[in-house]
Amino acid sequence: MYKYKKVKNGNLASWNDRYILSLDNHVEIVEALADFCRKKNILAGNVLGIGAVSEATFRFLDPATLKYVDKTFEEQMEITNLTGNISEKDGEPYLHIHLTCSRRDYTCIGGHLLKARINGACELLVDDFSMTDVGRKPDPETGINLYDFGDGMGLLSRLTKK
Amino acid sequence: MYKYKKVKNGNLASWNDRYILSLDNHVEIVEALADFCRKKNILAGNVLGIGAVSEATFRFLDPATLKYVDKTFEEQMEITNLTGNISEKDGEPYLHIHLTCSRRDYTCIGGHLLKARINGACELLVDDFSMTDVGRKPDPETGINLYDFGDGMGLLSRLTKK
Amino acid sequence: MYKYKKVKNGNLASWNDRYILSLDNHVEIVEALADFCRKKNILAGNVLGIGAVSEATFRFLDPATLKYVDKTFEEQMEITNLTGNISEKDGEPYLHIHLTCSRRDYTCIGGHLLKARINGACELLVDDFSMTDVGRKPDPETGINLYDFGDGMGLLSRLTKK
Repeated sequence: MYKYKKVKNGNLASWNDRYILSLDNHVEIVEALADFCRKKNILAGNVLGIGAVSEATFRFLDPATLKYVDKTFEEQMEITNLTGNISEKDGEPYLHIHLTCSRRDYTCIGGHLLKARINGACELLVDDFSMTDVGRKPDPETGINLYDFGDGMGLLSRLTKK
Repeated sequence: MYKYKKVKNGNLASWNDRYILSLDNHVEIVEALADFCRKKNILAGNVLGIGAVSEATFRFLDPATLKYVDKTFEEQMEITNLTGNISEKDGEPYLHIHLTCSRRDYTCIGGHLLKARINGACELLVDDFSMTDVGRKPDPETGINLYDFGDGMGLLSRLTKK
Repeated sequence: MYKYKKVKNGNLASWNDRYILSLDNHVEIVEALADFCRKKNILAGNVLGIGAVSEATFRFLDPATLKYVDKTFEEQMEITNLTGNISEKDGEPYLHIHLTCSRRDYTCIGGHLLKARINGACELLVDDFSMTDVGRKPDPETGINLYDFGDGMGLLSRLTKK
């Protein structure tokens, strides 16, 4: 599903790891990234990268109706930017990823990423904020799962697993 | 205006802090980020993130006329990427932020950010390069405030405040 | 071609450096960045930033024909995001850079960057993963130069140069 390399930092005292992650061709990005986070027990962090896909599904939240509108684009596109974060929900890594893609005519589309299939490469930099507790809980106003800082449960869950 | 969490790094010797910053719904991004930088005395750094807005104003510098053209888009959009940097000008944090947004039809617009109002969430990673002196000064050729490295005044200003 | 400032981290044990890089007006981005990497002996790392260009050439790999389609846009655009990585190929820094740009009408175009000429500023954050060996080798299936982790030759090459 992927290959990875831990960035060597020479610093024995550091709690945070950084990984160069190369997803395999034809895998689905969110699934592969979630698998990596589970394997490495990453429940707080950041993701940044580039790549190419043959298919991508974006979700738009219409604020007027509070309804989700999902759309799938089935075409070859470059990922000009993938930006996202990792937090913890119900003991599992929770990914929040946005994607910008450029099409065959070089114009860009993008949005909140539901899923995307790699066609070519996908090269990510993953930061693991291993000792920082970053949860999620639904916001009553918007229904969105917002950051929930500091109840310590996420950290406890990680320490128990380690 | 925002909630934040400092990324724990276990490294007592490190001068640089990293923050996960969650801006409150309906606040203006540049104003909230500047407030955070002032409170935390961040005068050099980096910003990266995603979110959603109901309004965004971009500035385009026409190189032929050297005139600014500002345009406001009043519609719900995802921020597929926010990238920017923090430096120091006249003792205050100086923000240089660019935004990429995806619209209801998933096509992207963007540019140099003047202001944008959050509608949903805005999740940023802020790096504080606290002991690095990064100023700004106007470039005679273009009129742009370019990086000014190394006169030490920014650092002195920060150390005096701390 | 550029000015730069090393981010001070106060950590003598750290192997990895971080640079704020300001490219000079009118230089070509890939050329200037490659020059910086060669001078600083950066053969593994990450790049993130913003700027403005008067010209940009993108490459689209058509997966059906496996042929490259290059297109140059000659117009003033903001770089809303530059994301890329640095690895090592044949002892030299190998840059993989994607760009998102916003045009005069604020719509975005982008893609795999071949070259782009700065008109205004270009402000980058360059991470040097100096002791991490990240090579490249052609993938038989796609013809793309994929990451090649771990044969140690890149690291050896760097240590020999230092």
